[in-house]
Amino acid sequence: MKVILDLDTGIDDALALAYALAHPNLELIGVTSTYGNVTVEQGVRNTLALLELLGAPEVPVFLGSERPGFRVQPISAFIHGANGLGQVEIPAPRRGPAEATAVDFLVSSFARYGEDLTVIPTGPSTTIAAAMSSSPEFARQARIVMMGGVLTVPGNVSAWAEANVSQDPEASDAVFRQGGNITMVGLDVTLQTLLRANDTARWRRTETAAGRAYAEMADYYIRAYATTSPHLGGCGLHDPLAVAVAADPSLVTVFDTNLKCDTTGPTRGRTIGDETRLADPLKTAHVAIEVDAPRFVATFVDTLEEYFQA
Amino acid sequence: MKVILDLDTGIDDALALAYALAHPNLELIGVTSTYGNVTVEQGVRNTLALLELLGAPEVPVFLGSERPGFRVQPISAFIHGANGLGQVEIPAPRRGPAEATAVDFLVSSFARYGEDLTVIPTGPSTTIAAAMSSSPEFARQARIVMMGGVLTVPGNVSAWAEANVSQDPEASDAVFRQGGNITMVGLDVTLQTLLRANDTARWRRTETAAGRAYAEMADYYIRAYATTSPHLGGCGLHDPLAVAVAADPSLVTVFDTNLKCDTTGPTRGRTIGDETRLADPLKTAHVAIEVDAPRFVATFVDTLEEYFQA
Repeated sequence: MKVILDLDTGIDDALALAYALAHPNLELIGVTSTYGNVTVEQGVRNTLALLELLGAPEVPVFLGSERPGFRVQPISAFIHGANGLGQVEIPAPRRGPAEATAVDFLVSSFARYGEDLTVIPTGPSTTIAAAMSSSPEFARQARIVMMGGVLTVPGNVSAWAEANVSQDPEASDAVFRQGGNITMVGLDVTLQTLLRANDTARWRRTETAAGRAYAEMADYYIRAYATTSPHLGGCGLHDPLAVAVAADPSLVTVFDTNLKCDTTGPTRGRTIGDETRLADPLKTAHVAIEVDAPRFVATFVDTLEEYFQA
Repeated sequence: MKVILDLDTGIDDALALAYALAHPNLELIGVTSTYGNVTVEQGVRNTLALLELLGAPEVPVFLGSERPGFRVQPISAFIHGANGLGQVEIPAPRRGPAEATAVDFLVSSFARYGEDLTVIPTGPSTTIAAAMSSSPEFARQARIVMMGGVLTVPGNVSAWAEANVSQDPEASDAVFRQGGNITMVGLDVTLQTLLRANDTARWRRTETAAGRAYAEMADYYIRAYATTSPHLGGCGLHDPLAVAVAADPSLVTVFDTNLKCDTTGPTRGRTIGDETRLADPLKTAHVAIEVDAPRFVATFVDTLEEYFQA
C-alpha cells in the first residue's frame, strides 16, 4: 500500500515516519508538511533530517501552508521540545523540499494511485481540507486515516478538543463533511497505546545513530507525559497508531458514523457525530473506539528495533 | 424479568409505562417517581392515572425527591404539555402513592430479587444516586438500563448535554462512578427510533380509551418534534427504547467503557468516557451506539396496538 504522511514533525510524528518506512506493508511515496507541534518550516527541516537519518533520503517532502496567525503553543514546545524533536540534535539535511505544493502532490498522487493510496494526516487538517476543496474526487474517494479528534473521552487541549483539530476546526469540519472515507484515530484509542522507557531502551541498545536518536526523542516525550498525564504511565503513540491502522485496520474496532467539528460556541474544536445525518445509511467516518493495544505496541517496538539494527 | 421504572411522567414516559406493561417478557413490580418533564407531584399523578387507564391499578407508585430549586423548563412544557401528557385529559386516579420512599423500594426490591431485577430510570439520576449512596450492594450489582446522556452526537438541551442528565449532573456522575452495571440508552440511539403519525393512527383505530389517549399524547409529542427537530421526521422514542433494551439487549450494539459526567466548567452535564479509567479492564458502562431501529419501532407499535385492543 502506498502512503503519504501529512506531518507536523514533532516526536510522535518522527515515530510515525520511522514506522511508515519500517512497516513491511507500506511504501512511503512522500511526506507533506503541516504545522502544529512546530511551524511548517521547522517541520520540513525535521522531516528531511529524519529521512536522511533513517536512510531514506529519496522520499520527497512537500510544503503545506499554515493557518494565518499560527504560533506554536507553549504546551507543544513543552511536550516536543523547542525544535520539535525533544532537543535531540539531528544532522542538518542536505536537501530542501520539493517544488510542488503539498496540495498538488496529494491530488496528483490520488489521481495516479486511486484506492492503492492512503493519506495519513497527523496534524491539523488545513492541507487536507485544501486538497479536498481543490479536487472533489480526492474528497469523495481518497482513503484518509487521520490521527486527530476524540469522540468518547475528553480532549487534551480542553475538556472537549484534541490538539490537532483545535488548530483549525473549520478545516476539520470541512474534511468530515466532504470526505467520503475518513478513519479517525483519535485520543479514544491513542491514549491506550503507551510507550515506556523499557521499550526505548531496546532501541538505544541497537547502538545505531537512528536507534539512539529515537530512544532519546521518545524518552523526552515520555518525561513530558509523566508531567502532563501521570495517570497514563507512558506516552501516547498517537501518530504511529494511525500508520499502523492504515496498514492493518484489524488493530481497532470502528464505529461508523458521520462526523462534524464544532466551529462555534463553547465547544469549538469538538469532534462529534452530526445529528442531522444520523439517519443517513451512508456513513463516511469510521471512528476507532477500541484498540488491541498490546499487539500494536509490541509490533511497533519490535519493528523499529529491527529497522534501526538493519 | 422484573422491572422498576423510575419515571418523570411526560409523554415518552407514558409510552414506556405502557410498553413495560405490554411487553411479554417484563413484569412491572413498581414505579418510582422522579422529576424533569414535570414535577414529582405531577409525575405521580400522571403515573397513577395512566396505570388505571391501562388496566394495571395494582402496580405501586413511590415518591422520589426533587433536586432543590427544580422548576419545569419551558422547553419541557412545550414538548410534553403543561400537564406532561400533551394536554390530554386522563381521568384522575382513585388512589395515591405508596408509603415507602422510592429509595427504600429500589433497595429492598434489589435485596429481594437480585439479578432478576432491572431498574429503568428515564429521568434525572437523583433517586438512583440516592439509592446507590444508601446501598453499596445496589450500586455495585443492580442492573440499570437508563434513558439519558449522549456520547457520540450533540445533546438536546445544549450542544453537549442531554435533558435528563442536565437536571442533576452530580447525581449522574455518582451513578456512573459507583454503578457496576449501567447500560446507557442515550440520544445516540433514541434519536434514531422515530414514531410517526401513521403509527399512532393504528392505536387510535383500536377505539379504546387507552388507544385513543395514547394516540393523542403521541401526536402532541410528534408535533412538538416537528417544531424543535424538523430534520428527524418524527419524535424520538427515548424512554420506550430503554424498556425495550432492558428486555432485549440484542436491539443495540454497545460500547463498553467507564463513564463520568462533567460537573464543572463549560461542559457541565456532558456524559463522557473517564480518561483516568481508560486502561481499567473492568468497564462498568455499556453505551448503546447503534440500534436496530426498524425492528424496535415495528415491535413497539404492534405490541401497544395489541395491548390497547385486549
